[in-house]
Amino acid sequence: MYSETWSREIARVIYGLEHCIRGDVIDIDEEGYLVIRIKNQEFRVRDLVKHYNFDVAYIRILPLIERAMTLVYDTFRELISATNYRGSFIPVYPMKVNPTPIIIESIFKYGEKYNWGFNTGSLGELLLLASLAEKYSPRVLIYDGVFTEKVIEALLKLLKLGWRVIVDIESEHDAEIVEKHPELEIGIRVKPIMKPHGKWSNSTGLSGKFGLTINTLVKLKEDFNWITERAVLLHMHPGSQISKFNDMKTYIRELREVYREILELGFENITMIDPVGWLPYPYVDTRDGEEESPDYSIIDYAKLLISEFLRDTKSPDLVFEGGRFIVASHRLLVTKVIDVRPYSAVHNKDTVNLLQGYVEKIKSIKDAKAVILKIREILSTLRSSIEKDIKNRELYEDLLALIEEEVAQRISTILQRGEISVNGVLSDHTILKILTSPSKRYVLNMSIFADIPDAVLVDQYFQVVPAQRLNNTPEVLASLADLTCDSMGEISHYISPGNLLNTKTPIVTKLDHRLVAIPGVKLKLRGVPLSMPVKNEDYYIVVLDTGAYQDTLAMKHNLIYGAPEIILDTSEEGVSIRIIRNGEIRV
Amino acid sequence: MYSETWSREIARVIYGLEHCIRGDVIDIDEEGYLVIRIKNQEFRVRDLVKHYNFDVAYIRILPLIERAMTLVYDTFRELISATNYRGSFIPVYPMKVNPTPIIIESIFKYGEKYNWGFNTGSLGELLLLASLAEKYSPRVLIYDGVFTEKVIEALLKLLKLGWRVIVDIESEHDAEIVEKHPELEIGIRVKPIMKPHGKWSNSTGLSGKFGLTINTLVKLKEDFNWITERAVLLHMHPGSQISKFNDMKTYIRELREVYREILELGFENITMIDPVGWLPYPYVDTRDGEEESPDYSIIDYAKLLISEFLRDTKSPDLVFEGGRFIVASHRLLVTKVIDVRPYSAVHNKDTVNLLQGYVEKIKSIKDAKAVILKIREILSTLRSSIEKDIKNRELYEDLLALIEEEVAQRISTILQRGEISVNGVLSDHTILKILTSPSKRYVLNMSIFADIPDAVLVDQYFQVVPAQRLNNTPEVLASLADLTCDSMGEISHYISPGNLLNTKTPIVTKLDHRLVAIPGVKLKLRGVPLSMPVKNEDYYIVVLDTGAYQDTLAMKHNLIYGAPEIILDTSEEGVSIRIIRNGEIRV
Repeated sequence: MYSETWSREIARVIYGLEHCIRGDVIDIDEEGYLVIRIKNQEFRVRDLVKHYNFDVAYIRILPLIERAMTLVYDTFRELISATNYRGSFIPVYPMKVNPTPIIIESIFKYGEKYNWGFNTGSLGELLLLASLAEKYSPRVLIYDGVFTEKVIEALLKLLKLGWRVIVDIESEHDAEIVEKHPELEIGIRVKPIMKPHGKWSNSTGLSGKFGLTINTLVKLKEDFNWITERAVLLHMHPGSQISKFNDMKTYIRELREVYREILELGFENITMIDPVGWLPYPYVDTRDGEEESPDYSIIDYAKLLISEFLRDTKSPDLVFEGGRFIVASHRLLVTKVIDVRPYSAVHNKDTVNLLQGYVEKIKSIKDAKAVILKIREILSTLRSSIEKDIKNRELYEDLLALIEEEVAQRISTILQRGEISVNGVLSDHTILKILTSPSKRYVLNMSIFADIPDAVLVDQYFQVVPAQRLNNTPEVLASLADLTCDSMGEISHYISPGNLLNTKTPIVTKLDHRLVAIPGVKLKLRGVPLSMPVKNEDYYIVVLDTGAYQDTLAMKHNLIYGAPEIILDTSEEGVSIRIIRNGEIRV
Repeated sequence: MYSETWSREIARVIYGLEHCIRGDVIDIDEEGYLVIRIKNQEFRVRDLVKHYNFDVAYIRILPLIERAMTLVYDTFRELISATNYRGSFIPVYPMKVNPTPIIIESIFKYGEKYNWGFNTGSLGELLLLASLAEKYSPRVLIYDGVFTEKVIEALLKLLKLGWRVIVDIESEHDAEIVEKHPELEIGIRVKPIMKPHGKWSNSTGLSGKFGLTINTLVKLKEDFNWITERAVLLHMHPGSQISKFNDMKTYIRELREVYREILELGFENITMIDPVGWLPYPYVDTRDGEEESPDYSIIDYAKLLISEFLRDTKSPDLVFEGGRFIVASHRLLVTKVIDVRPYSAVHNKDTVNLLQGYVEKIKSIKDAKAVILKIREILSTLRSSIEKDIKNRELYEDLLALIEEEVAQRISTILQRGEISVNGVLSDHTILKILTSPSKRYVLNMSIFADIPDAVLVDQYFQVVPAQRLNNTPEVLASLADLTCDSMGEISHYISPGNLLNTKTPIVTKLDHRLVAIPGVKLKLRGVPLSMPVKNEDYYIVVLDTGAYQDTLAMKHNLIYGAPEIILDTSEEGVSIRIIRNGEIRV
């Protein structure tokens, strides 16, 4: 009943492989394996890690970085040319997003033809940059960290190499230090008043951590009058990942206004604007403005920015500081399933028979609710008497497990037969919860704290996809537990982008009868749709888009850390593969 | 008006130095410096870091670890002896809490006389333990991680050294591996049904990440019948930091019930119980059961546990797995203030005069509200016209800053004069917010992500205290910004334990007129009460109780990481001081 609805096209949608940045670089082959495609060569992810005998690894696809840079650069260049915009386009890479040396070298290398610059905010980043700078052509640097003697030293080194160095001043303390070095150009960072939606909205507003209010700037200008002359850049930051285009519009309008004000205040040499907060990386690419899925594209963004400033008599140069957009896609985490655990085992066959008797009669959501209510009453009574007899506890556990299992199966069946409506299921919280809950827990050779720390730090959503059997309907919903002794070390949500499907029938897992997708609806599942590993099968899970921030935020919880890396790059012969070991300790 | 109410006693209360574990080891000397006291020697924190020319450092006070271990051991031994409890006391240290080698060695060394054992959950922890084990007497080990060949190898090494090794089995996969090694004793981890309050409550319940339901256990026992005989330990975990004694009671009762059930199921060799979830570390020691401030003591806990199991015919040995309680207090983060920034500068003197005119007339909360309402109306009008004229934006910023400044000053004055009531202030959200908001932002030489990662990861509260000028009334409320380019890198809350004060008058900061404390009330401030650093003063901030988890959760955000360490220990001559450098990169 189910399998006829599954296809590779559906798998691509469900597992987020229709993606504006990754394109067809990550795809599914005819036999249902996840593959990486570079220069017409195809690598199965499973074969790559098995070849090196890795149970866990990071695959870095460096050509995806080049792909993103080219996409950004071409978009802006074309629009600038088409509109006769008089400012130029100055892309810079914010090092904090990923300062791994191999990434910085990729930005240098691929960015040579675009003159791609850098933004740094700390001494450590500056020292790394300075250590690599001599091998490449000079670039623009925007520094927005704190000032010390060592920082100044590193900045002067870059200046000597022919770099253009612009430094943000945020306080009297900064001004006093920068005053002594007239060769440094100045950036002014102003606090925006608007607050967009999204998890980084705290970073803005007049009480935000960064930037100056206009009045503080006016006072600074009075105390250090050389600032007016040396300032060349206006910096503003509305917080990362603004997913709604309307918020972006409001912000860009404020930026334009502040730019006008700044000129009025006498900062006539400011010819560059740096909006920082930028088109978000689409961790989910459904373009609905929700769940880190921006409702606009890079073209929309570039058009907005250019058209706002085109109207000005003095069109400023446009700085692009997108970091996630450039590097998020390049890193894949691949990890093997090392154990599969049931949520609960059912003990007593009589209980099963009893419950099946009730459940078979369910013909509507209302029937289902009645059965659930009945069982819950029994559970409640049992709970208060659990202490009295171990049999009560066993029965309690049995019913708790069975109610999910049996109701899920029955509802899924009549839903697929069309005997109840999709809306009925969607509008009932209890039923929907049962149908979207996992029945298995897969233990993976990973640590969320080491491999995808933002999943615990900012509740970041990462796309999960199995490395194999993608041509079959998923069999179960599973939560993914890591190796740490920490209850936070678990992935138990999944966004099913049914809104992008063109099919009609709801898709249900084969074994535990949970929902995989409902056409027309973006659904939140509480587990990942996967196949059940068979005995001795090497079943791998892949987490996509882990290339931004995760490398530096990695923690060593439980002393589980590091992963071997498989580096894929283009070469004259086609594709090069390198292995980097990091003294990792895993299992 | 204010200074007469301040005293060293008040400072001790306000800055959390009346503490059940630290005792008088961390205190204030007569000149108002924060000091560390070991074996009658006194070290000023400021002098210690200045001596080594550190702008940031971790001070590790190893004797605080011994102090906590002794407190725990003595409490249990005394109660066991007084009640004629027939089981024994088996303390173990969970390595995940802090596996830094110097800490593990301290546990070995100080634990020699108590036969203190270990709990580990990963290969990395096991390898570290095995590398140190030969130097010390053999202990008990409880291992609750995943099984691989390498793990088994490390466990067998410890067995050879005379250790008692108990391993948790959580799945068929585990059982298949452990079956082959009959020399390993078995622990059974059962999922508790109860869910306590607190941020770790997700880790429990039947769908929790760890442990077995009774039915899964029954099934496991059927498939692997040797388990019954080899099992010696019952493991349960209600989640960390249960701060309410009533929750702890419920949990211990469930544990006792499960213990009885397990015996009934035939696990007759189980003679040890390990409740894991334990008396929380008091990050705030007000014993009110809130904000990680447990409403019970270690004596209450020991009494509860012993009295529950005393009633049983077969009193089990009691395993103690408190980790935070043992090591949280030992590490202090010391960091220098490198910049002080105002929240906003006020531009226009006329605006000040205008506003002061209004504010002077405030004689009640009602008056204050009326003024605020009036100004907010103006702000709202201004906001919509900000784009039209830079003067509007300046006025907007001025009013926004001034309303806080002026109202705070006026209200504080009449509050201290007794012209308005404390309850009036407390019950008005708007006024209270103004009076508890910071006026300054101190930039510190630290990274929250590297130094106190749990502050961002789980919103952990850490006690902050200045290293100097503790004999003066605080001058301002300040938010504490770190060096990262991340808006999350900021501390902006403070718990003022006025409920522990015996004084009468509200305490207000000298310069920005914000609330420091209200006697009788536990107050949440949005900034830390501090003095204003004067020009060229080396002003240090100390963050206490950072000894649990923070070392392994450290992140390298912005490539800011590592800190030099000052290790204080007792020696035959009195006190030893060692320095450890970690290749740190700061400013």
